[in-house]
Amino acid sequence: MFESAELGHHISKEKYELALPLLRKALLDVQYKLLELKSFPVILLISGVDGAGKGETANILNEWMDARHIHTYAFAPPSQDELAKPPMWRFWQALPPKGEIGIFFGSWYTEPIVQKSYGEIKTSELDNAMNDIVRFEQMLTEEGALVIKLWFHLSKDAQKNRIKALKKDPKTRWRVSKQDIKHLKLYDRFRRIAGRVLKETSTANAPWMVIEGTDPNYRNLTTGEYLLETLKSRISQHKKKTPKPEAPPLLKPIDKLRILDTLDLSKQQDKETYNNQLEHYQGKLNQLSRHPKFKKMALVLAFEGVDAAGKGGAIRRVTQALDARIYNVTPISAPSDEEQAQPYLWRFWRKIPAKAHVAIFDRSWYGRVLVERVEKFCSQYDWLRAYAEINDFEEQLSKHDVLVLKFWLQITQEEQLARFTAREEIAYKQFKITPDDWRNRKKWNAYKLAAADMVERTSSVVAPWHLIEANDKNYARIKILRTLCEKIEEKLARL
Amino acid sequence: MFESAELGHHISKEKYELALPLLRKALLDVQYKLLELKSFPVILLISGVDGAGKGETANILNEWMDARHIHTYAFAPPSQDELAKPPMWRFWQALPPKGEIGIFFGSWYTEPIVQKSYGEIKTSELDNAMNDIVRFEQMLTEEGALVIKLWFHLSKDAQKNRIKALKKDPKTRWRVSKQDIKHLKLYDRFRRIAGRVLKETSTANAPWMVIEGTDPNYRNLTTGEYLLETLKSRISQHKKKTPKPEAPPLLKPIDKLRILDTLDLSKQQDKETYNNQLEHYQGKLNQLSRHPKFKKMALVLAFEGVDAAGKGGAIRRVTQALDARIYNVTPISAPSDEEQAQPYLWRFWRKIPAKAHVAIFDRSWYGRVLVERVEKFCSQYDWLRAYAEINDFEEQLSKHDVLVLKFWLQITQEEQLARFTAREEIAYKQFKITPDDWRNRKKWNAYKLAAADMVERTSSVVAPWHLIEANDKNYARIKILRTLCEKIEEKLARL
Repeated sequence: MFESAELGHHISKEKYELALPLLRKALLDVQYKLLELKSFPVILLISGVDGAGKGETANILNEWMDARHIHTYAFAPPSQDELAKPPMWRFWQALPPKGEIGIFFGSWYTEPIVQKSYGEIKTSELDNAMNDIVRFEQMLTEEGALVIKLWFHLSKDAQKNRIKALKKDPKTRWRVSKQDIKHLKLYDRFRRIAGRVLKETSTANAPWMVIEGTDPNYRNLTTGEYLLETLKSRISQHKKKTPKPEAPPLLKPIDKLRILDTLDLSKQQDKETYNNQLEHYQGKLNQLSRHPKFKKMALVLAFEGVDAAGKGGAIRRVTQALDARIYNVTPISAPSDEEQAQPYLWRFWRKIPAKAHVAIFDRSWYGRVLVERVEKFCSQYDWLRAYAEINDFEEQLSKHDVLVLKFWLQITQEEQLARFTAREEIAYKQFKITPDDWRNRKKWNAYKLAAADMVERTSSVVAPWHLIEANDKNYARIKILRTLCEKIEEKLARL
Repeated sequence: MFESAELGHHISKEKYELALPLLRKALLDVQYKLLELKSFPVILLISGVDGAGKGETANILNEWMDARHIHTYAFAPPSQDELAKPPMWRFWQALPPKGEIGIFFGSWYTEPIVQKSYGEIKTSELDNAMNDIVRFEQMLTEEGALVIKLWFHLSKDAQKNRIKALKKDPKTRWRVSKQDIKHLKLYDRFRRIAGRVLKETSTANAPWMVIEGTDPNYRNLTTGEYLLETLKSRISQHKKKTPKPEAPPLLKPIDKLRILDTLDLSKQQDKETYNNQLEHYQGKLNQLSRHPKFKKMALVLAFEGVDAAGKGGAIRRVTQALDARIYNVTPISAPSDEEQAQPYLWRFWRKIPAKAHVAIFDRSWYGRVLVERVEKFCSQYDWLRAYAEINDFEEQLSKHDVLVLKFWLQITQEEQLARFTAREEIAYKQFKITPDDWRNRKKWNAYKLAAADMVERTSSVVAPWHLIEANDKNYARIKILRTLCEKIEEKLARL
């Protein structure tokens, strides 16, 4: 991986100064084109060995282009507040919107490579981390982001010479830290591990570009040219409007039996049992949320279901049991313009709770495989890939001890009609019914199909779907509360 | 202030249960009206003595209304990340958008009252804090927010009885903390100080409502009724479209001499001196940004000036001297829809740098008194009050060791014409010139008047305007860099 970056590449001052003005003008031009199109963001990762010119490169790119539309982030070890969230959270916060450039120093690659170099993780753990990264970057690129990954390299000799030179000069001696010396000792090991990581994560969508860092002229020109060509090529593709890949169709079960059909929607709960159980489970939920170990976990609840299935009422029965200071409910409707300029999961990452907190979503990230699929707001390819992306998302949360519970509330078509009609008749419930609801109702079968596929494809071990028979509201609410209590108890026992 | 909240108010169970259904329905109705209008946010502060039902009240409001549009924040002592920002930053982050309700526990009142009760600050410091709060809340209400402040009170005897009762029951004994006992000893002092704070901060725009907390029925009904009446009254005003108060006109100087006319725009810098000084001051700025004490401060730069005055070029000369990892440049154009749903200063608070960082604004919060004034995007009353609001904003930053430097770049009308024409002629500069620029040029005098008023009214001791003669770009850039270096040096010396 690094062989060609140890050849001692060099560009003379004359050549550099000749090439520079043209390069700068061209870079500025594509940057403004990017801004004008506002059709994709650029995520530029800057990694590599110490002293290979990472900081200098970020500076020079900001100098050459319009720094007002470049956002540079240096990710130091996570702060207290960041540690309360899943590790990827801070990178999501920093993603640039469409049209802008984000330069990431110390990206998601730093931790696995450093940990492995210091022998803190096993090879299998490194492999898992690489696998997660590839999937994450694939999601970013599928969502339209241009991911550019630069690795700045120095050969062992070049590294030694650099440190020697710095040490010699009293003015620069302070720049040589103990860590530099330590890293030099680890050089061979680090080089081997980094090489492996780069090979495994160099994909067609987001390949690595290794740049020799010894000669600043060579380094700067190479970086600039590479960035320019990548941007130009991507912008020209934009004009072509390349169609999304064809995705194979999902086969409907030939006997037409689907999981949602197996629910017994006649299940009921009488008023008295309901009242007793409601009190019982709300009390229990409240206790669980005050359990000392609850501080080590967080809770994400997603409520989905057909219109008028009783999501709002069920959510209210849950929040009634919780202290208002620990939860937040987010109703999902049309995204804001800041949300629209980001990958579709971004708006959910924004709301991910810190430890000891609860985030409740009234409709959720599953909109992609439900309404967006049925209403054709995205292509078949896009909603098909969403299954895996969503599974990854939920797995990331689970790994960080965020318990993800997903409820699908199902009612019959007749029950829906009865509820719609009732809503239209009762004055204070009229706001709950809109022409959209009637339109969606006509697509009952399409929604049912989408929901069945969703349940099958996203019921993971860490976050299975809980199907709720909701024709009887009392029954549904108790089942939800009971499930919640059981799952939190199980989670607390594992902590 | 607390006399009527120590009378032992009480509502019987029967009365409570009779009133509740109507109240809840009415509250839900106004909440949906609020959501539908999306014309103002509701900021509900919940304060008071321990055990007077603050938490219970937040819970019950979430239960009665639609919790999906209520956001409850409990402000604990600030975290590491929050301490790196000015104290008000975290409250700004939590402000609800128009149409939504934010419940703030432990608001901006907590710290001054607690500090004074423990004797950590002087009376004069408390007075200053109160003064700042009044001005802040006035800004919020002038920006349209409905600020509701509830204080839950218990008499000393009621407090004693509560603690005694909790201690008696083994199941609740754990709820009595050492702090509770300590607070009880401080009761009289706390009551006196809180009473004073409430009196001083009970304004016509944001009055305090003191509620006796002993009897839950009384407490809940009073809170609900008060919230309902306040919301209803505000919503009915909305329909009336009450005009903004008339503001007295600003008098133009009768001899027509204004500060910007006193600038000698013929000032120049020859190429050689420029190159030397550029290198000198950029080197110096770089050193200053690496000074160990720079970690204790932050830097905010605002660039304003007529179109084509050279703001972008000047900013580039500054960023060239800085490490890309410590600065961020924000160009200010039309606000996003999330920004539009907030007070106008919100979008700048979002970008306030943490310690050791630099935020650069290409155009700034001064848009309110420049473009918004001239183009009549806001009323005269609104831009007139902005002078004081902006001074407060900058003072809050300065107090937290954020150095605020503001540059006004001035060129002559002839020079502007020459630059516009040049931009139209040079292909790669065409993106810089739009029909808007030509339109604004016709309003030269109106902008000049606005700028002169701005400079006079917002040149505070902590953040004076630096006027830059910018007909000669070299001269302007050097003056900016020199000013920057001088001011940072002064600041570092004071740290």
